[in-house]
Amino acid sequence: MKFYDCSTAPSPRRVRIFAAEKGIALPTVQVDLRNGEQFTPAFRAINPDCTVPVLQLDDGTVIADAVAICGYLEELHPDPPLMGSNPQERAVVTALNRQIERDGFFAAMDAFRNTAKGLKGRALPGPHDYEQIPDLAARGRVRVEHFFRAMDARLDDRAFVAGTRFTIADISTLVLIDLAGRAKLTLPEACANLRRWHREVAARPSASA
Amino acid sequence: MKFYDCSTAPSPRRVRIFAAEKGIALPTVQVDLRNGEQFTPAFRAINPDCTVPVLQLDDGTVIADAVAICGYLEELHPDPPLMGSNPQERAVVTALNRQIERDGFFAAMDAFRNTAKGLKGRALPGPHDYEQIPDLAARGRVRVEHFFRAMDARLDDRAFVAGTRFTIADISTLVLIDLAGRAKLTLPEACANLRRWHREVAARPSASA
Repeated sequence: MKFYDCSTAPSPRRVRIFAAEKGIALPTVQVDLRNGEQFTPAFRAINPDCTVPVLQLDDGTVIADAVAICGYLEELHPDPPLMGSNPQERAVVTALNRQIERDGFFAAMDAFRNTAKGLKGRALPGPHDYEQIPDLAARGRVRVEHFFRAMDARLDDRAFVAGTRFTIADISTLVLIDLAGRAKLTLPEACANLRRWHREVAARPSASA
Repeated sequence: MKFYDCSTAPSPRRVRIFAAEKGIALPTVQVDLRNGEQFTPAFRAINPDCTVPVLQLDDGTVIADAVAICGYLEELHPDPPLMGSNPQERAVVTALNRQIERDGFFAAMDAFRNTAKGLKGRALPGPHDYEQIPDLAARGRVRVEHFFRAMDARLDDRAFVAGTRFTIADISTLVLIDLAGRAKLTLPEACANLRRWHREVAARPSASA
């Protein structure tokens, strides 16, 4: 098994935190996104989508998506469960995690990638070049603000995003908050629940993975 | 169990096709998106995100996401498997389905929702209003064209999107192609593999679900 990572990128970080929570050590290869290693023929042969994370299994099978990799690790190492422990819980956590991606993660990506100077002409990851869209960055900022407030309300009566247990939904939220921070979007003072949750989750050993 | 649907919307259609392939009949309630039923207090009490599909279980649990609902149905009714039949297959299908969402489904959504006259001020589903962004519609069109070509290449040596068996990845692709059609994006003549696949998949009884 080989994990293709980039220590500064948000998507592979989701997998690193997930694996750390389970105590799994993944044999890791760093891909130098800053210098375009994802576009080399050698890396395209592994993932034509030119993105990380990628988990390559010993038989050569490639899993080229953060959540799919987490699902695979969850099946191989069910404890502690980070995606729910029965069909109903799994469905609720999956739905929540996907909503967090849509409303939070992708919004933070829009805000960051459509303004970052180093990403001119690279507003989306992947093999194709797209120009930055300033209106999309602005919309992303507004959406992240809405997301912060919705998440704050959700955490009013919950220890963790999905309820009483730490799950992949907490990991997604933590990573997107840090990504939003790169676009200078910080947690509002008024969001006391979200700030409490963030302090606690960011203090877990896995957060530095 | 109660399935909140809208017969003209693409996301709940993914669940309808999935259930039809498994021979599951879902007790269904239509939500009139065109007349704003998703914003009524009654529907917000079920799903504050104001979207369909929603599957409500008998104990009141709400699953408010198409893929999460499919995952739940897959666990309850494993045959025929539409999301892979072992951890490795599940991971590969999940990764592929998510890539299809990112590069195809969301791109088609961008193309359609940012130009449709009836969606002025409603460029995204959900409780918040966002103005249409013409540049995002244009980017969506280019991305859908790239997606068609990538999918055509993939289908050169595969019967179905994920390989030899029909899966959720075929459902996502079928639904996004029809959505792209609403934005007048049609399958290029040159994409013979994709057209062959589309003919076959659109002819399955489930496609009219």
